[in-house]
Amino acid sequence: MVIVMAPEVTQGDIDSVVDLVRAAGGEAFVSRGVSRTIIGLVGDVDHFGALNLRSRSGVSDVIRVSVPYKLVSREHHSERSVISVAGVPIGPSTTTLIAGPCSVETPEQTLAAALMARQAGACLLRGGAFKPRSSPYAFQGLGEAGLKILAEVRAEVGLPIVTEVVDPASVDLVCAHADMLQVGTRNMQNFALLQAVGSAGKPVMLKRGMNATIEEWLMAAEYIAQRGNLDIVLCERGIRTFETATRNTLDISAVPIAQRLSHLPVIVDPSHSGGRRDLVLPLTRAAIAVGADGVIIDVHPEPAKALCDGDQALADDDIRELAEVMQSMPAMLGRTLALPPQPQAAAGPLTPASL
Amino acid sequence: MVIVMAPEVTQGDIDSVVDLVRAAGGEAFVSRGVSRTIIGLVGDVDHFGALNLRSRSGVSDVIRVSVPYKLVSREHHSERSVISVAGVPIGPSTTTLIAGPCSVETPEQTLAAALMARQAGACLLRGGAFKPRSSPYAFQGLGEAGLKILAEVRAEVGLPIVTEVVDPASVDLVCAHADMLQVGTRNMQNFALLQAVGSAGKPVMLKRGMNATIEEWLMAAEYIAQRGNLDIVLCERGIRTFETATRNTLDISAVPIAQRLSHLPVIVDPSHSGGRRDLVLPLTRAAIAVGADGVIIDVHPEPAKALCDGDQALADDDIRELAEVMQSMPAMLGRTLALPPQPQAAAGPLTPASL
Amino acid sequence: MVIVMAPEVTQGDIDSVVDLVRAAGGEAFVSRGVSRTIIGLVGDVDHFGALNLRSRSGVSDVIRVSVPYKLVSREHHSERSVISVAGVPIGPSTTTLIAGPCSVETPEQTLAAALMARQAGACLLRGGAFKPRSSPYAFQGLGEAGLKILAEVRAEVGLPIVTEVVDPASVDLVCAHADMLQVGTRNMQNFALLQAVGSAGKPVMLKRGMNATIEEWLMAAEYIAQRGNLDIVLCERGIRTFETATRNTLDISAVPIAQRLSHLPVIVDPSHSGGRRDLVLPLTRAAIAVGADGVIIDVHPEPAKALCDGDQALADDDIRELAEVMQSMPAMLGRTLALPPQPQAAAGPLTPASL
Amino acid sequence: MVIVMAPEVTQGDIDSVVDLVRAAGGEAFVSRGVSRTIIGLVGDVDHFGALNLRSRSGVSDVIRVSVPYKLVSREHHSERSVISVAGVPIGPSTTTLIAGPCSVETPEQTLAAALMARQAGACLLRGGAFKPRSSPYAFQGLGEAGLKILAEVRAEVGLPIVTEVVDPASVDLVCAHADMLQVGTRNMQNFALLQAVGSAGKPVMLKRGMNATIEEWLMAAEYIAQRGNLDIVLCERGIRTFETATRNTLDISAVPIAQRLSHLPVIVDPSHSGGRRDLVLPLTRAAIAVGADGVIIDVHPEPAKALCDGDQALADDDIRELAEVMQSMPAMLGRTLALPPQPQAAAGPLTPASL
Repeated sequence: MVIVMAPEVTQGDIDSVVDLVRAAGGEAFVSRGVSRTIIGLVGDVDHFGALNLRSRSGVSDVIRVSVPYKLVSREHHSERSVISVAGVPIGPSTTTLIAGPCSVETPEQTLAAALMARQAGACLLRGGAFKPRSSPYAFQGLGEAGLKILAEVRAEVGLPIVTEVVDPASVDLVCAHADMLQVGTRNMQNFALLQAVGSAGKPVMLKRGMNATIEEWLMAAEYIAQRGNLDIVLCERGIRTFETATRNTLDISAVPIAQRLSHLPVIVDPSHSGGRRDLVLPLTRAAIAVGADGVIIDVHPEPAKALCDGDQALADDDIRELAEVMQSMPAMLGRTLALPPQPQAAAGPLTPASL
Repeated sequence: MVIVMAPEVTQGDIDSVVDLVRAAGGEAFVSRGVSRTIIGLVGDVDHFGALNLRSRSGVSDVIRVSVPYKLVSREHHSERSVISVAGVPIGPSTTTLIAGPCSVETPEQTLAAALMARQAGACLLRGGAFKPRSSPYAFQGLGEAGLKILAEVRAEVGLPIVTEVVDPASVDLVCAHADMLQVGTRNMQNFALLQAVGSAGKPVMLKRGMNATIEEWLMAAEYIAQRGNLDIVLCERGIRTFETATRNTLDISAVPIAQRLSHLPVIVDPSHSGGRRDLVLPLTRAAIAVGADGVIIDVHPEPAKALCDGDQALADDDIRELAEVMQSMPAMLGRTLALPPQPQAAAGPLTPASL
Repeated sequence: MVIVMAPEVTQGDIDSVVDLVRAAGGEAFVSRGVSRTIIGLVGDVDHFGALNLRSRSGVSDVIRVSVPYKLVSREHHSERSVISVAGVPIGPSTTTLIAGPCSVETPEQTLAAALMARQAGACLLRGGAFKPRSSPYAFQGLGEAGLKILAEVRAEVGLPIVTEVVDPASVDLVCAHADMLQVGTRNMQNFALLQAVGSAGKPVMLKRGMNATIEEWLMAAEYIAQRGNLDIVLCERGIRTFETATRNTLDISAVPIAQRLSHLPVIVDPSHSGGRRDLVLPLTRAAIAVGADGVIIDVHPEPAKALCDGDQALADDDIRELAEVMQSMPAMLGRTLALPPQPQAAAGPLTPASL
Repeated sequence: MVIVMAPEVTQGDIDSVVDLVRAAGGEAFVSRGVSRTIIGLVGDVDHFGALNLRSRSGVSDVIRVSVPYKLVSREHHSERSVISVAGVPIGPSTTTLIAGPCSVETPEQTLAAALMARQAGACLLRGGAFKPRSSPYAFQGLGEAGLKILAEVRAEVGLPIVTEVVDPASVDLVCAHADMLQVGTRNMQNFALLQAVGSAGKPVMLKRGMNATIEEWLMAAEYIAQRGNLDIVLCERGIRTFETATRNTLDISAVPIAQRLSHLPVIVDPSHSGGRRDLVLPLTRAAIAVGADGVIIDVHPEPAKALCDGDQALADDDIRELAEVMQSMPAMLGRTLALPPQPQAAAGPLTPASL
């Protein structure tokens, strides 16, 4: 931590800061410059935080030089982690495709979307049963009935389930059916929810808040980790900027940066960041090329009838193109496409009609 | 709702959209331009939303022309509302000062801060018992013990209490002590929490999300209103922008805009938007001058020892200056300073030492 | 300047940085922390900039602790400056109203707008002859003919002229007619233009770039000052954010911050920041209350026929309200309304019809 | 264009708008909804702009439904264009690498950087002789001497030159030496400069303003095109957001969007968007994968001694990695790597020492 003193600082001000730091068990090194004096602090930065140094007489600025997260940081865990979701790996040597419908609407729609997901190369099935929506008048998801549909489709198709949890009170219910819990962008700083999923014993996918810095995102992950759960996958899904041509601006640079700062895997959601079907494949290619550990994509058998975000769901020919991308690109980055936990053969003959 | 068709649209595409709209019980008016054809829709816009018109062949854009909130809108409730918090009004003919410590730390600190608040002209006491913090290692508040301190100080000083609730599970507990529930910026789209406070039977102060548009803020208020609670006060507290000189950028224009769109009162938090003590008084003056219905301000008897946001708390001489502003400015806007529910005399002899 | 070394730094890396700094004539103080080592530099920061310290082995971050502008800084010029525009003061003891049409369209329209400006309390006349427009198909201003109209209206009404210059090549032409040169938001980092107006011998109003930090704004002012011209007035006119309810987001906090960092006067443009007529008066009140040294406002005799930004121009009753604000508010801040250079009587009988 | 009337509109207001539109030669279609009436306009949208419809009584909003640029739009020119720079193509079937030093410093440094560029697969040489810098105290480039160095290096190495022009007055000088003119991010709305390069008869690379929407960027290109120059290449280089981990946020989605709206080629600058060496290769891969028509990259023989942006310049091993990416990735997108105009053999034996 570095204290920058104001130009008009007195010797008394400087002595007073040094004394405070020493009383808190730290060491302080004073460097007197031509126009500014700075004081470098050595010791436990958490203790210094409580000193309110910024409020002291003669202090102009306080600059933190270490990162405010620990368990998820790469400083003390330099190897990048592999997270396992019901046997499916997410980490540095694979590219993991998670796909499925934005919302679970019916058993038929969910099964059809799951088959599309598998056809595209997915090894995990996404699907929302609890949907946080900006408007109270929009479709809010099927709730528990949706979770049951997801579980039935998992039994048929063999893809473990990733689904969102929006409330600490429903964490147990979601855990009873899901293989991985998703915390959405609007809940990235819902600390009660972070603590609840941190204690739930399931892997967690933590979406970046649309207004969150990378540092805040990692601090949100730290909330989960602090409860003993380090099975966390970070998901970049676009940030809010002045540009209105896309729903959000995919911050593609966040992928290598988060991977450098944290040992956790980082995936990308090209569907929700762009909010437009025509951007999903280009952004998927960009995500894999930048080095993401996976992507999560909306698919729907009939996007025009989707109850949620139909504008961005892939369908038909898109699925074939996505499958080609997933087959060809990972090798270029020295990765392999992650595979579902069960042999594909068992799920082969399934069709929507067989439900 | 207006549908903008793509330049290469066919007559079949146009007919198909018109048919869909009519099947949904609406009416469609086609205007053929030189380069574009547009279709105006008349009817229930919620029904049209389910048609996924943006996904239809030949459709280039869909433009909503009505607001997505109803209960909080001024369209059907043109008079601006007055909200009463334990007898204290917040509305268009008063200026209400809410003040107190960012966090409740001790009975002595809370009482001293409450006396400072009253001295400055406050009629409501703010103070956090549950604190949502970006870092899991930061002080998270005293919880229930903090609520009890607030209640004791209210008994002594006579100012009703505004305090934050961060989790649906603790709404009942907070309601047992508080006069007004605060929903913080990070929880503005915590929909489970919005619904819980909407059912709690207490007035709610809804802070704007630091990344939320004014429209999203009003939709969050609609979530509360939909549960039967229209006692909502909106609080502008700064938005996140590229500027780093302030913690957030106070969106002063949001005050008159929100007042025009909604009948709810709108107040300003000059402490958290700027994050700097030296900005609090200038921004308070600006808030009153722009027409805010009140302000909420951090005060602390010893900012340098504050456990939370000491950098922005007012103290000492600031309180006298604030009192002068509160005495002189409201009249200029045709308002009066809102008064506490009890006669000031009763609370007169109190000092921190008397606890 | 402070160098933060990476966690894995070697003694050789540290020595190498210290040697570089000393070779450049500076002094370096090393503070070894538990997880990080930092090096404080003392000496001429401009020399250190050329060392590319950030690229050196073992360096994790370089933090500048002094401001990058000098002539416009308050560090070496603690008194706030008063700028005189043809005898009209802009500075800390006055409130200066600049008003007029966004564009000069005709002699009649300009005279009528100037009379409205004077009626509202303005002592300077704004009006654009050269208009930078986002679209090449929009009205670009009358050019030299517009400057001549402004000069004629000045002769009639007695208000000195503020007008925009958009190109180094036309600085001389604009100087031949104008009393103050305006540099617009899109040209805040047009360095050739800044240097040209810095050499032109006229006061300059420098609008903040809609994407510029306060620091960049002051560095742009430094470009002007470096050419020997310290008659600079800073104008906050809104920054670009995610909010779309206003054309730009007025950064009201920038006023006290810029006044603290720089000795130059700071005014506000409530017309262009909001882009909506209904916001102009509330934002004008907020600007005066926050401590701005003046405001610049669009007025137009017939906004519905304006060739530029008619949506935001004040007219009719607005002028009376504005006059009331200008009469009543400055005193509250301990200021007086700045007056035009000539006695008002001389210009009294003028009407648009008299042209 | 669509006019949305306010809820309280009168029949007279509606008639008045319809009359205005018809008087301007247009047609107006009225659709009366339950809560709103909308009026669709058909005719010349530029004429309607002058009507200031937003200011008319009863009008709540005016929505433009066609794009405000024409010459650069894909609506009337559906084939994507190929721009030729001294024989080097930039367009949809190639991937073009432009590389070189941020600034021209010395003949030796420029030649060494050019050889690095060629080794990496570049077919065009970038290098700044005129540098727009935020601080007046930073290195501003060698000016004409820099242009001459570039021309000499071109003669030796065989790569045509891309260099920035910052001022209309120096366009002729730059044209005398350069093969392509670059307009930088801070000058994207310097309209005098846009018009000057539009008349200069050389291809232009137009960098996106760091605060510009995609629409504004295309309108800036329209300014150039309007002067008869359609040899324009758009360059995405990052936008300004709240995130501070990168200098700017690369808006990777802007590439496919700009390619869909405009027929002009779109390239990416991964060096200036991230501002960090470690991001250049990942972002280069992402740019190629998303479908960019090329990339422009900073290289420097000794980044630690660079006078400008040394923190982001590639060197040494990075060049080999970049060469591998340029060799392997374009084919995946169905493209070929663009080649320099001359046979490589001629330039083979050159070394920095040979100058």
